[in-house]
Amino acid sequence: MTWIDDPEFTGDHPFGPQTLPYGVIDEGVAVRVGGQALPLRPIASSFGERLAELVSADSLDPLLAADRPLWSELRARLLELVTATRAPQGAVLAPLSTARLPFTVGDYVDFYSSRHHAENVGKIFRPDGAALLPNWTHLPVGYHGRAGTVMVSGTDVVRPKGQRKGERGPAFGPSVRLDIEAEVGFVCGGPVAREVHTSAAADHVFGVVLVNDWSARDIQAWEYQPLGPFLAKSFATSVSAWITPLEALSRARVAPPAPPNPLLPYLVEDVDWGLDLALRVSWNDTVVTTPPFASMSWTFAQQLAHMTVNGATVRPGDLFASGTVSGPDKFQRGSFLELSWGGKEPVELSDGSSRTFLEDGDTVVITATAPGEDGTVVGISEVAGTVRPAV
Amino acid sequence: MTWIDDPEFTGDHPFGPQTLPYGVIDEGVAVRVGGQALPLRPIASSFGERLAELVSADSLDPLLAADRPLWSELRARLLELVTATRAPQGAVLAPLSTARLPFTVGDYVDFYSSRHHAENVGKIFRPDGAALLPNWTHLPVGYHGRAGTVMVSGTDVVRPKGQRKGERGPAFGPSVRLDIEAEVGFVCGGPVAREVHTSAAADHVFGVVLVNDWSARDIQAWEYQPLGPFLAKSFATSVSAWITPLEALSRARVAPPAPPNPLLPYLVEDVDWGLDLALRVSWNDTVVTTPPFASMSWTFAQQLAHMTVNGATVRPGDLFASGTVSGPDKFQRGSFLELSWGGKEPVELSDGSSRTFLEDGDTVVITATAPGEDGTVVGISEVAGTVRPAV
Repeated sequence: MTWIDDPEFTGDHPFGPQTLPYGVIDEGVAVRVGGQALPLRPIASSFGERLAELVSADSLDPLLAADRPLWSELRARLLELVTATRAPQGAVLAPLSTARLPFTVGDYVDFYSSRHHAENVGKIFRPDGAALLPNWTHLPVGYHGRAGTVMVSGTDVVRPKGQRKGERGPAFGPSVRLDIEAEVGFVCGGPVAREVHTSAAADHVFGVVLVNDWSARDIQAWEYQPLGPFLAKSFATSVSAWITPLEALSRARVAPPAPPNPLLPYLVEDVDWGLDLALRVSWNDTVVTTPPFASMSWTFAQQLAHMTVNGATVRPGDLFASGTVSGPDKFQRGSFLELSWGGKEPVELSDGSSRTFLEDGDTVVITATAPGEDGTVVGISEVAGTVRPAV
Repeated sequence: MTWIDDPEFTGDHPFGPQTLPYGVIDEGVAVRVGGQALPLRPIASSFGERLAELVSADSLDPLLAADRPLWSELRARLLELVTATRAPQGAVLAPLSTARLPFTVGDYVDFYSSRHHAENVGKIFRPDGAALLPNWTHLPVGYHGRAGTVMVSGTDVVRPKGQRKGERGPAFGPSVRLDIEAEVGFVCGGPVAREVHTSAAADHVFGVVLVNDWSARDIQAWEYQPLGPFLAKSFATSVSAWITPLEALSRARVAPPAPPNPLLPYLVEDVDWGLDLALRVSWNDTVVTTPPFASMSWTFAQQLAHMTVNGATVRPGDLFASGTVSGPDKFQRGSFLELSWGGKEPVELSDGSSRTFLEDGDTVVITATAPGEDGTVVGISEVAGTVRPAV
C-alpha cells in the first residue's frame, strides 16, 4: 500500500504507478495517480534544482524542452515517491477536474496511416477511383492542421458552419455530417532537430495522447481538392488532458504490419515502434467501435522521420497524430463516416436511437489501454467532447 | 528635411515616412526609415506608458496583441517623430542588417487565390482534368503550412530531400525541381477572434509582408494527393524582415476582379480590399517576372472571413499568405513552374545562362511597391533567399 489513497491507483487499473501521465491543473504541473492528480510544485524541492525548475512551471513547455535523460530521471523519482508508504512533505492530492491543455502546441500534423481507414475513405469519397493512391504504400501521407484550435478533453465542440456541395452551386450552413476521427497523438520534446532517424524518434517524442480530429464531412468533400482538408478540420481538435510518457509504453511495442513493398532506407526501423494500444470509442453511452492501433501501417518513428527528412525542424510542443485508427473489421472503424458507410448504415445506440453522424448534444469519449510491465495495464487518458449547436 | 540623414528616406523612395514598417533588430523593435532602422526602445518613453511597453519588447508579439487604435496611435507618433527637424533625445539609427523574424508565427495558412496561377498549375499537374476545380470560384481554397519553418528574409534555403515519382516506385534524393512562389502575407493581430466579417478584417490584420513559399515540385507531384502539399513546402517559407502596416496601404485599395458567380454572404465585402501591389521577382540579377497583386480573385478580407467562418479562432501572430501571385501574361507568373511551363520553356537570365528550376547558389529576391498618399510609393520589404546544396 502506498500513501496515495485511491482505489484506482493500483496496477490493475490503467492509471496505477506504471503509467504516471503528466498534465496541468490549477495548481500547476501534476501527475495523474488513479482518479486524482498530484501537483508537483509543492514537492519539487525534493527533485533537485534542475527538475524542480521544470516541474514548477505553469505548463509542460519547459519539461518538453528538456531531454530524455531528464524525463527518465523525473519518472524514476516520481515512481519512488508515489509508491512510498509515507507521503512526502507538502504533498496534497487534487481533483483531475481543473486539467487544461498542458502544453503550447507548435505545429500540428495529422497523418493518414491506417490502411483500412484510407481504403474505406477512398471508396466513400472517390467511388470511381482507386481506393488507395500510389504514394500511400511508400510514405506516411500527412498534412498540417490548425494548432490554434487544439483543445483539451472536455471542451465542448461547437458545430461548424461552412460551404457544402448543393444542387446548384454550394449551400451554406451548419455541417450536417459532423464526424469524429479516433487517433493517437505524439507530443514532441527534446532539442530542436531535423532529419530525425527512426532510431532517434524516442528522443524527440515525450509522450502520447488520444486525439479526436472532429471532421465535417460535407465541408470536407466540397473543399478538399486539390490542397487537402482545411475548414472541415480546423474548427476543433481535442486531445487528452494527460500525456502518457513514451517510457510507460515500452512493453506495448509490436511490429507494424509488413509493408507491401520495400521501404526507402530513411523509413526502415531498427526496432519496431508499432504500439499495441486498444482504443474504445463511446457514442453517448454505447461503445460503438474498438480500433486496434497495432494495425497501423506507419509507426510514429516513421512519421517523424518522414516529417523531417526534407530538412524541416521539429520543436518541443509540436504535435503529430496518427490518422484515424481503423482495423479490418467493421466495429474497428475509427470514424462514423466509415462506421455508417457514408451515412448509409445507421449505428444503433443502447438507448434505442440510431445515428449516422453526430447530433447536437452527443458526447464522444475515446479511451485506450496498452500492456504494461508485469501484467499491468497502461492507460492513455480519455479524450471527450460534447457537440453544441452551431452559433 | 528631417533629422534622419538617409537619401532613401523621402517620399520618392518606397521606405520614406509614408511607409514606416516594423521589424526587430539586435536593439529590439525598430521602424525602417529608408535604408536604416530606428530602434524604438531608446525613445520609447516619449510615447506614453502603454505604447512604450509595447515597443520596448524583444519582438513584435506584444504590439501584434494590442489593437488597431493603438497601432494607429503609434504610427501617428512615429510619423511626427521621424519627420521632425531635430532628433528626439536618445535616437540612434542602426543598420538593417541584424533584422530577424520579428514575431512568433502562430498558425500559417497558405491560400491559392490567383485564378491564373490555379489554372496554370491545374494544366501542368492534371493535364487530363479540369484546370480549375468546381469549388475554386466559390471559396478561397487554402491549407495549413508549417509555422516552425517560417524564416526571415536573407536566411539560406537548403535544398530539400524527399521522395519523387521514379520509374519503378519512388526515387529519393535532393529535389530536382526546386521552385519559388511569390506571395503576399498578412500578419494577424488584435484580440483572438472567430467569425471575422470582411468588414472587420482590418482590425485583425496588423500588416503585410512578402512571402516566398519555396516549393519542391517533384516532391509535391508525388505526395499531394489526397491530403495536399506537405514536405514539398514544409522545409522553408521566407518572409520579409519588415512588416508594412496595413494603414500605409489605404491608397492601394482596389476592387478585385468581378467574381464569376454570386458570392455567399459571408464573402461579400462592404469595401474593396483588393490591393494594387506590384511585385518584382529577380532570379540572380535578372527581373524575370512582375506579378500584379491586383489580379488576385480573393482578397485578404475574404480569406480571413473564410478561415474563421467555421468557428476557428485567429490569434495575433497567425500568418496567412495569398497564394502565388500570377497575372494573365507570361511574364506575370509568380512561380518558375509556370514561367518555364513545367520545365519545358527555359528562362533566360542576363548572364547568358538559362534556367527551368532553381540551381544551387541561385538567389531570388522579391520586392513590391504600392501607390501611397500624395503620389508617394509605399514599399513592402524584400524577401530574399539563396539556395544551398542539400546536406
